Amino acid sequence: MRERLSAMLERGVDAFGGWNARRFLRELQQVLDPAVSEVEGGRRAAAVAEEYARATPQQRRACWLLMSEHFSPDVSAIQAAHAAYQAARGSEDESRAEVRLRRAFTAPRTRLLQRFSAYPGGVRFLVDLRAELLPHLARDKRLIALDDELQELFSTWFDVGFLELRRISWDSPASLVEKLIRYEAVHDIRSWADAKNRLDEDRRCYGFFHPRLPDEPLIFVEVALLHDMARSITPLLDEQAPAADLTRAHTAIFYSISNTQAGLRGVSFGDSLIKRVVETLRTEFAQLKVFATLSPIPGLRRWVDQQAPALLRATPARLRQALERELGAPLAPDAAALLKALDGVATLDERSAARRWLLAVAARYLGRELADDGRPLDGVARFHLGNGARIEQLNWLADPSPKGLRQSWGLMVNYLYDLRRLDRHRAQLAQGKPPMSHAVQALQTDLL
Amino acid sequence: MRERLSAMLERGVDAFGGWNARRFLRELQQVLDPAVSEVEGGRRAAAVAEEYARATPQQRRACWLLMSEHFSPDVSAIQAAHAAYQAARGSEDESRAEVRLRRAFTAPRTRLLQRFSAYPGGVRFLVDLRAELLPHLARDKRLIALDDELQELFSTWFDVGFLELRRISWDSPASLVEKLIRYEAVHDIRSWADAKNRLDEDRRCYGFFHPRLPDEPLIFVEVALLHDMARSITPLLDEQAPAADLTRAHTAIFYSISNTQAGLRGVSFGDSLIKRVVETLRTEFAQLKVFATLSPIPGLRRWVDQQAPALLRATPARLRQALERELGAPLAPDAAALLKALDGVATLDERSAARRWLLAVAARYLGRELADDGRPLDGVARFHLGNGARIEQLNWLADPSPKGLRQSWGLMVNYLYDLRRLDRHRAQLAQGKPPMSHAVQALQTDLL
Amino acid sequence: MRERLSAMLERGVDAFGGWNARRFLRELQQVLDPAVSEVEGGRRAAAVAEEYARATPQQRRACWLLMSEHFSPDVSAIQAAHAAYQAARGSEDESRAEVRLRRAFTAPRTRLLQRFSAYPGGVRFLVDLRAELLPHLARDKRLIALDDELQELFSTWFDVGFLELRRISWDSPASLVEKLIRYEAVHDIRSWADAKNRLDEDRRCYGFFHPRLPDEPLIFVEVALLHDMARSITPLLDEQAPAADLTRAHTAIFYSISNTQAGLRGVSFGDSLIKRVVETLRTEFAQLKVFATLSPIPGLRRWVDQQAPALLRATPARLRQALERELGAPLAPDAAALLKALDGVATLDERSAARRWLLAVAARYLGRELADDGRPLDGVARFHLGNGARIEQLNWLADPSPKGLRQSWGLMVNYLYDLRRLDRHRAQLAQGKPPMSHAVQALQTDLL
Amino acid sequence: MRERLSAMLERGVDAFGGWNARRFLRELQQVLDPAVSEVEGGRRAAAVAEEYARATPQQRRACWLLMSEHFSPDVSAIQAAHAAYQAARGSEDESRAEVRLRRAFTAPRTRLLQRFSAYPGGVRFLVDLRAELLPHLARDKRLIALDDELQELFSTWFDVGFLELRRISWDSPASLVEKLIRYEAVHDIRSWADAKNRLDEDRRCYGFFHPRLPDEPLIFVEVALLHDMARSITPLLDEQAPAADLTRAHTAIFYSISNTQAGLRGVSFGDSLIKRVVETLRTEFAQLKVFATLSPIPGLRRWVDQQAPALLRATPARLRQALERELGAPLAPDAAALLKALDGVATLDERSAARRWLLAVAARYLGRELADDGRPLDGVARFHLGNGARIEQLNWLADPSPKGLRQSWGLMVNYLYDLRRLDRHRAQLAQGKPPMSHAVQALQTDLL
Repeated sequence: MRERLSAMLERGVDAFGGWNARRFLRELQQVLDPAVSEVEGGRRAAAVAEEYARATPQQRRACWLLMSEHFSPDVSAIQAAHAAYQAARGSEDESRAEVRLRRAFTAPRTRLLQRFSAYPGGVRFLVDLRAELLPHLARDKRLIALDDELQELFSTWFDVGFLELRRISWDSPASLVEKLIRYEAVHDIRSWADAKNRLDEDRRCYGFFHPRLPDEPLIFVEVALLHDMARSITPLLDEQAPAADLTRAHTAIFYSISNTQAGLRGVSFGDSLIKRVVETLRTEFAQLKVFATLSPIPGLRRWVDQQAPALLRATPARLRQALERELGAPLAPDAAALLKALDGVATLDERSAARRWLLAVAARYLGRELADDGRPLDGVARFHLGNGARIEQLNWLADPSPKGLRQSWGLMVNYLYDLRRLDRHRAQLAQGKPPMSHAVQALQTDLL
Repeated sequence: MRERLSAMLERGVDAFGGWNARRFLRELQQVLDPAVSEVEGGRRAAAVAEEYARATPQQRRACWLLMSEHFSPDVSAIQAAHAAYQAARGSEDESRAEVRLRRAFTAPRTRLLQRFSAYPGGVRFLVDLRAELLPHLARDKRLIALDDELQELFSTWFDVGFLELRRISWDSPASLVEKLIRYEAVHDIRSWADAKNRLDEDRRCYGFFHPRLPDEPLIFVEVALLHDMARSITPLLDEQAPAADLTRAHTAIFYSISNTQAGLRGVSFGDSLIKRVVETLRTEFAQLKVFATLSPIPGLRRWVDQQAPALLRATPARLRQALERELGAPLAPDAAALLKALDGVATLDERSAARRWLLAVAARYLGRELADDGRPLDGVARFHLGNGARIEQLNWLADPSPKGLRQSWGLMVNYLYDLRRLDRHRAQLAQGKPPMSHAVQALQTDLL
Repeated sequence: MRERLSAMLERGVDAFGGWNARRFLRELQQVLDPAVSEVEGGRRAAAVAEEYARATPQQRRACWLLMSEHFSPDVSAIQAAHAAYQAARGSEDESRAEVRLRRAFTAPRTRLLQRFSAYPGGVRFLVDLRAELLPHLARDKRLIALDDELQELFSTWFDVGFLELRRISWDSPASLVEKLIRYEAVHDIRSWADAKNRLDEDRRCYGFFHPRLPDEPLIFVEVALLHDMARSITPLLDEQAPAADLTRAHTAIFYSISNTQAGLRGVSFGDSLIKRVVETLRTEFAQLKVFATLSPIPGLRRWVDQQAPALLRATPARLRQALERELGAPLAPDAAALLKALDGVATLDERSAARRWLLAVAARYLGRELADDGRPLDGVARFHLGNGARIEQLNWLADPSPKGLRQSWGLMVNYLYDLRRLDRHRAQLAQGKPPMSHAVQALQTDLL
Repeated sequence: MRERLSAMLERGVDAFGGWNARRFLRELQQVLDPAVSEVEGGRRAAAVAEEYARATPQQRRACWLLMSEHFSPDVSAIQAAHAAYQAARGSEDESRAEVRLRRAFTAPRTRLLQRFSAYPGGVRFLVDLRAELLPHLARDKRLIALDDELQELFSTWFDVGFLELRRISWDSPASLVEKLIRYEAVHDIRSWADAKNRLDEDRRCYGFFHPRLPDEPLIFVEVALLHDMARSITPLLDEQAPAADLTRAHTAIFYSISNTQAGLRGVSFGDSLIKRVVETLRTEFAQLKVFATLSPIPGLRRWVDQQAPALLRATPARLRQALERELGAPLAPDAAALLKALDGVATLDERSAARRWLLAVAARYLGRELADDGRPLDGVARFHLGNGARIEQLNWLADPSPKGLRQSWGLMVNYLYDLRRLDRHRAQLAQGKPPMSHAVQALQTDLL
């Protein structure tokens, strides 16, 4: 751990490019002054935020350290309260002692941060501050507590009960559509015409909004209403494709979900969003029967690159022979030739051994390989399976864009939300068996 | 302390009128189940709330105890985390240890209560539960921690930053005006015509609303726009009185402030409300110069009844003689005759000694007598002086209603909000010197 | 016809209490000045309206005459244009000649009145002006053209296509509920509690609103959702009666329809209102099967009083004898004793001959007696039968209020809106045969 | 005039490509059926509109003829009513006779068209029908009456009193911004970034909306808030240019006004729009002092091309000599060389004789040359001068776009709206003297 900022201040060091850290600390302390009203506290917090806005990156890091080190809990007060609580256990005073313990524990930092909520832009300020701070966490452990406190505060403020689900359509404000274009994280929106296509009459787009970040979708999902399960992203992004006939649409495909606020990392909205959207769609379209995603497999290629030797070893002899025949060469342990052949996915027909192999590998990646915490390796799989969805179908060349090819050789997957089985699926996942359809299970059997 | 409910359950006692407390406990625990999604947790919380709604008062008390005793913090986990935190102080791991300590400390009760926010009526449920619980606190200390946890949760949820200030007018929903009639706590609204008068063009009424308790004013204030400082509540409540000429209105009088949600006790909105309303009025009416209240003095009479002997002793000889002349009899130590004479306030003219004495006593009560916590004795004085207002003017027979006579012999007081001096006034109050005008100071000099 | 106002002005007579009619005429002419912009014309119209607001009733009558006489069509221009049009018939210029004829015909009064629509309160002004003028029409035929022109203008402005159907509920503005209380014309609303009962969850109230008379319902209807056909108004107006179970409600009863703007007489909204409300209710409550009214028979008693001798003559001998037995006396030709007996309707049981007679007479009044224009005598019958409803059921003592007894001995009638037969019913009515149920037809057979 | 369609129908000719014109006529007549309710009439009108939507252009022309010829006024009824009116003049019955005359005159076509307003899309249908019909008017005079009747109906329906002024901003619906892009008629909007620039914080855009054409701006104006009078359109359309400092903005420049509905030709909104926008801006920005346009001069070049010989003749000798020096050749009567030189406007400096000549010619074109109806030749000048603006300033090379150069060699003009002088200016215009600033008057003196 590096030297405490406070120690440096005490030594009179001012490492912050001429910036008066002591004065800033004093201002932070004045925000907390219990003698002033909440309104006045908010006014002071706003002034701090203004000063922060003018600070350099280096000065901002100093701010974070000040907030970390100078507003931590009072250890001796905790100790005393804790002792009193233990003494009171079982007595008449236990309940009151618990209250005192909690009070003792509440770090001044908590009250400091809460003061920022008292002026209009304060929540925005804290969310942006955390977005800026997050990339520094790995390098500077001193910031962990501040980050955690922010996340906890945001979890309460941005509780799903306070979120408003709003449909985003072509009749939404242009400034909001512009934000969709900017924030879309899965399949880039290339133009306003592309955005309009995604807000067409056979599409639905919903976002969660919060009263303290008005006009800002915290997360949004794009849905296509289709006759059948979507097998490829291409027609969905085709601006010229005709709109589906809504009276015959039985399937809702969630084809893009994007979080927009880096500063809200760890505060989860996605599960609720999908469930609220499913409810909303079922109310509007009674005939919808199937709710599923068409999702990327962002980590597939990186994982295969790393695991290729092991995967080859798990490949049964028959499939190995077929691969060698197809490649016209023996398989090297590092599978270099095979991986190279996969670069030409677009040319592999349904009988191709390489295609069979890749599908088997992808099924294993999604459904059998779990991280140390017992959850799927793939970030997107982790999200949907965690919500109770199951792996339904793997789709070949479903995303032929450079990004799609780079991430997963163009493979995409449908996760199915079977509303009556979400809890059963979650239970299976908890037992280390991500639920999957028979078809995907069958794909897996191509590997040992 | 009475027996722990858990102990009773273990003994197989079921004291709750045939109600299955064990099953209810199990249901509460299932709300908390970390394996289920937030949406499912919310669904379970809603089911618990429905069961609670059907329970008897006795059963409800059992619910509170279950929530108090079975979801308190894990003492040994806190102890371990606390030890680890102390060990890590100053080391690289201090920040991470602080996070762990906070995690250990978070009582399961906190998470349990938060789950209730996940379904639409959940916040309403908790607020009503606390309103029901509050009267039992004094008698059953076991409930203190639950109450405190609720208050803390509400303080975050109902943070003023999340409140919306809305004007309430005669064009507001009838159902909302009906709530004003029901909730008005200072000067009863006697009829719809009375309500209409208070929402007339020379009046303003504002309330704070929260997204989770829609259509429910958490607190509201009634304001009259006048040419001069109001000296009596009578013309303000007179439905026949003509509306003031707004172009000549220089004074805004806050003549009634009512909190509506007993369950939100301890969560303070009033200070912010007044400041936001002042801002709003200044924007709409640039010519407004004076912002003040016309307030009751609810505790005056009770206090005088108790303190009469001491007050008499503090009465200088001259005034005593004048009183005796006026009463036509010597003053007894208990001031019985004087207090009896005050029943006839309506007949006491400006030269009356009894009137002089009562005004002096009222000025002392408001401005010099402080409670042990250093704050004014009178609840209303505590609120306004705490906000930075000052005692401006005492008004004789300003509220001749039975309630007004009963509380304070009809006396009312104006608290002045001088926006440039709020902080100075708060500082004076903190030093034990409630700020007051020269006129009120002068009244006081009639007592030693 | 009295002397033309213009002639009086020419003679220098100024019969209008010192009011300068010539100047007012000049101001009206300036409103019309084709050289000024529409905005300026509107400004001038607003000034005229302000002056009118200050005028005495006598002066206002003079205003109407000025508007009647000084802005009528230019006869010679019409003559010329008419001749030209006839000459052009069949030629290439016919179409253009028609345009010129229409232009020639448009009275300056039309353009004058239209100018009033150009400022915000102008439409309100004209509607109120006509409301004031209407009672004078019968006495002063000179005003007929002005009235007709206003009605025609209103018919275009208040075209149903421009009306907005809005639900009025207990969540509607208090100021709007206050208007319901004021405007209700069928069953007086006695108090706010009465209003609340009519806006309860098992009720619906809808009004038509127009953008130029904001917050003003032009007409509104009160509907009760019930399990069966309503037989009496009493339970509907009973504030203590429990709300009906909406899941079992199959019948929508329209129990009050009130026009609010006397100035819009002759501009009909009622037909559209009922049809739009029926559509709206069917969308919200798929299980509704029956749409009917519970209506007063306002003209019954007056008609029976006039027609008693003829009705007695049409009474068959059998019923006459039963009546005489019941009355204990022979029937006089003027039916005085019978009518007197009917004052005690509340005591007449189901076998009473007087009751039978009155029901037969009422059935005839509603369904067989037509006015010279071929439409029903009774105003309410005229409205509902004209809309395509049929007479469904007569209800004894359905409105025991003094007004109900005075108008129709407490009798009320249900008109049934059978949506698939509205046009068929209208056709029957056009043939002089108001449609009625078998039950009501059967009642009639008691008369010759 | 061609044969009447009715005659053709009578002869059994069906010239409309197999389309059953007789049936269509019958359907039109059924729309009018006085026996059906307004709601049913509207339903029938909607069915007619649907059939029309499927018709070919040729069939649509036949529709117009049917509507023109078969629903014209009843000549003999008019004649009789007219005679009766003349007879009644001065008698008691004059007023009633006037009513009858108006009734007789109302063409069935009026009632037919009004029925279309009774269903939601009906107004849209008629506006689009007229937009389609207008280009045929010149070739087929039979359509004039139908067109005129539509315009008159629209004038009542779209009366400015019924229009709602709404600000259009970057927070307006994307679908509305898309319409701006499509409808902008003066300076093409090239991209969404261009649209965003025009809705930036230093800009204002307002449109008139009508309840029956929702989400459709009938007309809109784009305004820039600037420090000084705008001399060129270039910086206003520059997406990179920084926004003006609003606190220092004293000038509002209307730089684009576009009508969007061809079908509403002849129904004027522009005058009201500008006045309402000026009012709105003055409320929002008290410091605005100058309201002016930056307008194209669309007809200048065409007029100069036609009038060149006459203009040359009006050029005083001195200027002619300067021109010849500058051109290096004598002036031909057709001014060919001069006009050719003007193609190089970008190179003509302030001392250029050609530049002087062109400015003088433009000043004359705008301010001295009037059409036969006494109004300015130039369409844009006609509009603004008709509203009471004056010609304020001519701007050299203010619009260097190809369109600007083609229309007016890049010249643009500011029309000034001096609110206190609008009526005075309109009076000057009515006297044939379009008002102009001294500067523009001075330019003119360069011509005889």
